[in-house]
Amino acid sequence: MDLLFSDITVITMDDARPVLSHGFVGIEGKKVSYVGEKPPEAEAACVVNGSRRLIMPGLVNSHSHLPMALLRGFADDYRLKEWLFDHIFPAEGKMDERCISAGVRLGLAECIRFGVVSCTDMYLHLSQIAEAVLEAGTKANITNALLCLDMDKFDFEKDRGTMQVREVLANYKGKGDGRLIVDAGIHAEYTSGPEAWRKSVAFAVENDLRFQLHLSETKDEHEGCIKRYGKTPTEILSEHGVFSRKATAAHGCWLTENDMAILASNGATIAHCPVSNLKLSSGIAPVMKMREHGLNVALGTDGVCSNNNHDMFEEIKTAALLQKYLTGDPSALPAYEAIKMATVNGAAGQGRENETGRIAPGYDADIIMLDLDAPHLFPLNDPLAAVAYAARGSDVCMTMVQGSVLYQNGEYKTIDVEKVLHEVENYVIPRLK
Amino acid sequence: MDLLFSDITVITMDDARPVLSHGFVGIEGKKVSYVGEKPPEAEAACVVNGSRRLIMPGLVNSHSHLPMALLRGFADDYRLKEWLFDHIFPAEGKMDERCISAGVRLGLAECIRFGVVSCTDMYLHLSQIAEAVLEAGTKANITNALLCLDMDKFDFEKDRGTMQVREVLANYKGKGDGRLIVDAGIHAEYTSGPEAWRKSVAFAVENDLRFQLHLSETKDEHEGCIKRYGKTPTEILSEHGVFSRKATAAHGCWLTENDMAILASNGATIAHCPVSNLKLSSGIAPVMKMREHGLNVALGTDGVCSNNNHDMFEEIKTAALLQKYLTGDPSALPAYEAIKMATVNGAAGQGRENETGRIAPGYDADIIMLDLDAPHLFPLNDPLAAVAYAARGSDVCMTMVQGSVLYQNGEYKTIDVEKVLHEVENYVIPRLK
Repeated sequence: MDLLFSDITVITMDDARPVLSHGFVGIEGKKVSYVGEKPPEAEAACVVNGSRRLIMPGLVNSHSHLPMALLRGFADDYRLKEWLFDHIFPAEGKMDERCISAGVRLGLAECIRFGVVSCTDMYLHLSQIAEAVLEAGTKANITNALLCLDMDKFDFEKDRGTMQVREVLANYKGKGDGRLIVDAGIHAEYTSGPEAWRKSVAFAVENDLRFQLHLSETKDEHEGCIKRYGKTPTEILSEHGVFSRKATAAHGCWLTENDMAILASNGATIAHCPVSNLKLSSGIAPVMKMREHGLNVALGTDGVCSNNNHDMFEEIKTAALLQKYLTGDPSALPAYEAIKMATVNGAAGQGRENETGRIAPGYDADIIMLDLDAPHLFPLNDPLAAVAYAARGSDVCMTMVQGSVLYQNGEYKTIDVEKVLHEVENYVIPRLK
Repeated sequence: MDLLFSDITVITMDDARPVLSHGFVGIEGKKVSYVGEKPPEAEAACVVNGSRRLIMPGLVNSHSHLPMALLRGFADDYRLKEWLFDHIFPAEGKMDERCISAGVRLGLAECIRFGVVSCTDMYLHLSQIAEAVLEAGTKANITNALLCLDMDKFDFEKDRGTMQVREVLANYKGKGDGRLIVDAGIHAEYTSGPEAWRKSVAFAVENDLRFQLHLSETKDEHEGCIKRYGKTPTEILSEHGVFSRKATAAHGCWLTENDMAILASNGATIAHCPVSNLKLSSGIAPVMKMREHGLNVALGTDGVCSNNNHDMFEEIKTAALLQKYLTGDPSALPAYEAIKMATVNGAAGQGRENETGRIAPGYDADIIMLDLDAPHLFPLNDPLAAVAYAARGSDVCMTMVQGSVLYQNGEYKTIDVEKVLHEVENYVIPRLK
């Protein structure tokens, strides 16, 4: 055994024993090899004593646009159209590969700092993103989604997003020991059309890819689709085969019960983004109803422009709070279920359900440690409540993926954060102004 | 000049120039003596260089029950009545003075850590709270509010809360250089009656005290009052003179427009507690409507049992997000206005509007510093958006009250946190079990 966490509070996310107050977790190579309430028989090369520490599975951010970290605080408190067309799109238009390289590293540094071990990410310049993920040591499912605002001129072979997905598949597929997964995807119903959906799905089938998209985020978008097709986005996309692929659909604020049933029966995942949905006045997704339909609901931050950070602890808490508000029932979406959305459910949405999201023998050692030595986490009457309601990303003192430490006590092991900040300050910001 | 913050990002909360990108702030004794965009002429004994740092006024928590820090994670995800009667009240019944002494210090340590310089607090064993506030070096408006569940047996002279307020007035009034202010108060309309209100107001008039209460927190409570008196809580309490005192009313989720008009015309303050209101399914307070009525709206965490921390940065963000959701307008309650609720408006609610909540010459040097050297605060495109939407309490690296540093880079200068944790672990927890 290479490493033993000894006598430590463990949140396993194993329903049968979700919390061990004085637990032992052993790691061998890239995998968890032992979980128990007694010390293992095998000796460990290194022992980490867990006094006033807590370990739990690393978090999965199921919907991100990592390089948008560059646009943090760039255009806040604007109405949606003004925000997108006058500020965000023009700035994104100025981003070259060098900007993206810096931006994705900035976003990944924040993720690692805050205990995120895997992202489902959708953004431009996919090769730069793949490169950064492999270097940073995290996991990610990445795509550059198909987007075509003028379907009359649509040519699938020339679609920029798909071309980039092909390129990354050719250059990076299988690299990083399964850490990097390439997805197919469309940006959304309203930014494409039936021919694009069919071809994109065929492409996903051909390459055996999962699928990412935005779905029923705003009321306007949802109702616009009904006007266009006489059907909801879920219904029309389903008819064109989109959900025949395992899909992660972001938002879903305005899904109907029929939509939920369609998505659930196809094994889709909703990436619920509560903070972003509030900030852009999109609404509150009916998570409890989705769950009743058996739909897998995970959590995402969305891009930092509409957040403005990658703190998944905040998403866990906000998700739980909003469902308590929406249902009028303070027992709705309790701590454990909310944490599940950011671990087990997120892992399932990435097709990593047997790999991450739990601390269990045979799972990758994707583990984060929280420093409990802070007044706001004391007393630890209930570790699950502490994680869901009191902790923040900054309480993470160690982030490990596949047994490798990526961050510990202020030190980034794989990203040169100073260099990234310097690059953003001196290259990116002048360019975007 | 004793201290100069040099070439630093300053959020002044002065409407004419809310942000200085390269500002200079001088401190002389307990007061701010200089604020400008150029260095002052006077020399400073000590200069703090502000590269990648931001200073802003310390935050005001306008509704807290500090010692409830002891009950963090004690009973989460329960329905309200079960939560209060089966868990919280029985535990509170077991708290003696020694518990409160530890609990209030734990709460204050968290406040100081997270940049809170002043609380409006309501809790039992008021002398222990006064003592701890004076020792910790923070500011606070404190009361132990009148509570009488059987008004037939009401005897104002024997009311425990009022007796404790009298005792604290006798022993501590004026101590701590104005840091400690003693308030009068009633717990709420539904936990008292007309005779109690009249006598409590007379007591406040006699001693020239401000007033604290809970008001229209839940729909049940608001409608119960209408059933009892044919009037809303605000209407009936107003008729009995409660709002003739400058009052801080916590919550106000269910206030009518007439209630808002009454409160505004009396110069009352609403302590909006967005996180607590969601967690207990109480609702979302109509803050934008309150503001239209000219009502002063501040922010509070409420007790950690319904939160579960004292992070006012979270309240700022949640308040802004909820109003964007409620109004359907992402430009509602923009960053600056949300920060104002936790600074300027909070100070006004405590009668400290000329003393704290701003960085301005003549104001107390109640200042906090944020460490911007973290990926989630970079780039600093907009310091107000960074504070409102990206920062968390843990980004505070220095908390100063009246020119004295109470916390800096992990070190607590006035509270022995280790001793407090030890006391909670060894005395309080066994007692509350």
